[in-house]
Amino acid sequence: MSFSPSFDQLVQALTCLPGVGNKTAQRMALRLLLEQPQKGQQLADALNHALHTATRCQQCRNISDAELCLICANPRRDHSTICVVEAPADVLALEQSTDYRGLYFVLMGFISPLDGIGPYELGMDILDEQLATGDIKEMVLATNSTLEGETTAYFLAELAAKHNVPATRLAHGVPMGG
Amino acid sequence: MSFSPSFDQLVQALTCLPGVGNKTAQRMALRLLLEQPQKGQQLADALNHALHTATRCQQCRNISDAELCLICANPRRDHSTICVVEAPADVLALEQSTDYRGLYFVLMGFISPLDGIGPYELGMDILDEQLATGDIKEMVLATNSTLEGETTAYFLAELAAKHNVPATRLAHGVPMGG
Repeated sequence: MSFSPSFDQLVQALTCLPGVGNKTAQRMALRLLLEQPQKGQQLADALNHALHTATRCQQCRNISDAELCLICANPRRDHSTICVVEAPADVLALEQSTDYRGLYFVLMGFISPLDGIGPYELGMDILDEQLATGDIKEMVLATNSTLEGETTAYFLAELAAKHNVPATRLAHGVPMGG
Repeated sequence: MSFSPSFDQLVQALTCLPGVGNKTAQRMALRLLLEQPQKGQQLADALNHALHTATRCQQCRNISDAELCLICANPRRDHSTICVVEAPADVLALEQSTDYRGLYFVLMGFISPLDGIGPYELGMDILDEQLATGDIKEMVLATNSTLEGETTAYFLAELAAKHNVPATRLAHGVPMGG
């Protein structure tokens, strides 16, 4: 038993964050309540707002505030190139580290028959429709280089071949001379 | 620029947590929005509730939901012993690791004249009043063994001596035979 039930609840709720155990959650709760209550309120408001606003982009399946995410809705990006990734985190990583100016398609997972995740669950039917329009001239397969990622890339390459769209895979490993 | 402003705001708000940088905050935000939106809502509600409910205990200055915290309000605890600590985290540590059954007094800091923190800012006037009632028969000085903690303990020992209350300091270092 602690000194305050609402404090205990907050600690318990904070442990849902990745990498946060009971002790870290206690430190976070004390920071939010005592040291920075204003930032704590900002966090509560931002979380509420994001949970109620954020939906999925109709075009790329990424997190979005509207029907189209800011990347898909940006007319200055190259709408003829599409980069297929597994998760929103990959979009962030590519945006921060490369000068890629095309669009993305976020699978939100990888093909995993044992878990019942096939092409349809990854929205490949949506991707199929987009490829069928003929607007997409190049597809970059940026799935992870795991077994599942490679399998998913194989499926995507077949899909691209069906529509005669050239598909390239991200390079990985040590560069020549490295 | 990211794909969703509300996602960016949430990431920004999460960086106020101790030990959380931009990349960790992104991972947390994705977890809260995509994988566990229910737990995300629980966290938002718990944070809002704690920020609006949690106040300070009138007796021990700790975080509390009512005038008295659960420890001070518990009649089965030993109300004649008081343990003076620097922060609520110390109360949690002592509650989890010892079988101490007395009350606490939380200074919420330590004496630091350069920062303008003297005995009054640490609520020692409240402690003085409590000692004056004569109900407290023993005081445990559990401030940290830093220079500031030792100075604070010295002040507290003088306060206890004024009211003829025996004050003991927590042992620290390697035990004999250790």
